[in-house]
Amino acid sequence: MTRLTLALDVMGGDFGPRITIPALSLALEKNPMLSVIAFGNEVESLPYIHKLPLEQQQRIQFKHTAKSIDAHLPFMQALRQSKGSSIRLTIESVAEGKAQGCVSGGNTGLLMGLAKQLIELLPNIDRPALTSLIPTLNGKSTVMLDLGANVEADSKLLMQFAEMGNIFAQIMLEQVYPRIALLNIGTEENKGTIHLRESHQQLKLLQHLNYQGFIEGDKLLNHLTDVIVCDGFSGNIALKTLEGAAKNLLSFFKKTSEESHLCRQAKRYLLQLIFYRYYRKLQQINPDRHNGATLLGLSSVVVKSHGGANINAFYYAIQYAISQIENEIPAKISQGLNGKY
Amino acid sequence: MTRLTLALDVMGGDFGPRITIPALSLALEKNPMLSVIAFGNEVESLPYIHKLPLEQQQRIQFKHTAKSIDAHLPFMQALRQSKGSSIRLTIESVAEGKAQGCVSGGNTGLLMGLAKQLIELLPNIDRPALTSLIPTLNGKSTVMLDLGANVEADSKLLMQFAEMGNIFAQIMLEQVYPRIALLNIGTEENKGTIHLRESHQQLKLLQHLNYQGFIEGDKLLNHLTDVIVCDGFSGNIALKTLEGAAKNLLSFFKKTSEESHLCRQAKRYLLQLIFYRYYRKLQQINPDRHNGATLLGLSSVVVKSHGGANINAFYYAIQYAISQIENEIPAKISQGLNGKY
Repeated sequence: MTRLTLALDVMGGDFGPRITIPALSLALEKNPMLSVIAFGNEVESLPYIHKLPLEQQQRIQFKHTAKSIDAHLPFMQALRQSKGSSIRLTIESVAEGKAQGCVSGGNTGLLMGLAKQLIELLPNIDRPALTSLIPTLNGKSTVMLDLGANVEADSKLLMQFAEMGNIFAQIMLEQVYPRIALLNIGTEENKGTIHLRESHQQLKLLQHLNYQGFIEGDKLLNHLTDVIVCDGFSGNIALKTLEGAAKNLLSFFKKTSEESHLCRQAKRYLLQLIFYRYYRKLQQINPDRHNGATLLGLSSVVVKSHGGANINAFYYAIQYAISQIENEIPAKISQGLNGKY
Repeated sequence: MTRLTLALDVMGGDFGPRITIPALSLALEKNPMLSVIAFGNEVESLPYIHKLPLEQQQRIQFKHTAKSIDAHLPFMQALRQSKGSSIRLTIESVAEGKAQGCVSGGNTGLLMGLAKQLIELLPNIDRPALTSLIPTLNGKSTVMLDLGANVEADSKLLMQFAEMGNIFAQIMLEQVYPRIALLNIGTEENKGTIHLRESHQQLKLLQHLNYQGFIEGDKLLNHLTDVIVCDGFSGNIALKTLEGAAKNLLSFFKKTSEESHLCRQAKRYLLQLIFYRYYRKLQQINPDRHNGATLLGLSSVVVKSHGGANINAFYYAIQYAISQIENEIPAKISQGLNGKY
């Protein structure tokens, strides 16, 4: 590991420094070459930082700001109020090249909006895509993008998403020739929007992509593909529907202590599916790598942690960002796309 | 109940006459004024019909056809082969006014395609919408449309869907002032496509509609609204994602006989969610009213039963069609929309 600087919004998320700083400590312990620029309120943050080993404290450059933005504030209002806030300062430090990437558990819309505004796009990319790993039933993951950064996507954009997803899956899932599919409402050639049909025809011709065709919403969890490409509207609808179903079904299990093995297994998977977002009693669940959405297509790594993340989950979001920086995801995407679209 | 004639595709669905004719028998028993025109292969169908009470046999006008279309055939191929098939003859008999409505468990795409081609649209409707009742967690239902009849929908079409959904919920769910929401990727005014934002502004101004604003994918099961309006693409993605999640989660429960009460409750709800589509051991589950999707906006009632329906579920699809005919859903939609858009 070479020297690496990460910007961190310690105020982001439902619990702020109480979660983010212990998580940061785990990351500093794990990665000896990691330095961090941390943005947050000093009154709330310093008590947690002062508890850390001196060696770790020396690798944290703490920047005080009294301002943080409520995660549930509407986007336009959040944007207007964002100047000088921890989330904006975090993004700015990346935009100014002071850090190679950042992590925040704050307002998703605001984080995307600021990142798109302030951080440079990669040369061959028109728009970034919000990208996540979906936990599949066999214990593996599928890369899914876009999950909400773009309401609409023409075929040119969908092709860029496919290329980005392909490179992301190669590196992050260690897949040699990742299977790629387009989310659609049927698997026949004439199904879906004109953009999907155009992309389908183009993708079939590209030898370097392992394109499988269309995939429907009921197959998202079956690991039939390594990458699912969609516009941000349908991707967001699909992901939230999945999370809502999982969250609601968990309510069946919530009350009982008497549990069969199968109930436990179902519950565990449901919790994975909702990415720790809604439930806080998470210590009994193993941390996994499904916390964190990445805004792919920017020249730096931007990772959004779920607001409800616990220490382990937030630590995994930091590790996820570090892994993307070490693997030079932005540069590799840029090379992969070089002049293609 | 006044005299009523229904057209029935007895070959549709995964099991054909073995399921459809006993279901029809239950419906004939329940509705003394019901007559049926049944289309199917006589070799396969007549043994079942001859088992029925003579009084019931006299109310069935059986029309032989050797041809039926595989439910999984691609749409264009199915359409080309459809002439003289049981599903097409069923739709034709409605189009010709010989029956007031029809039920089929056959190929969804083909049923929609034929119905749109052959059955007249209501005067004030531009396109029909595939409409279903989604079972919510509190044991009630939400009307959702469009679920796949139209890949795209501009604001004019979305307004028509809202009006149709409103009338459908008033009658079928017995709601006085049904709450209506638009499916979107956020609840703020500036979210989503231009069509959604336009519809949002228009719906806010209409006093006769109880418009609640946008709803996100994670709230579909929470009965926060009585009607969910969307284009057919995102509606289909949402519904299939829901069904896929339910189907996959059921696999956790499949193997065990040792079950806690909570497991059973979860399982029961999951089965409701997938509308009996995938599981055949259904006798232990109470039939409910969630089998059957309606193509709203046509001058006659067209109900699609799920292909995997058992006798009870198919019986409910027939009852669902009868109830819509008795309640004059098409005429009421037409009156409700009269000259509005």
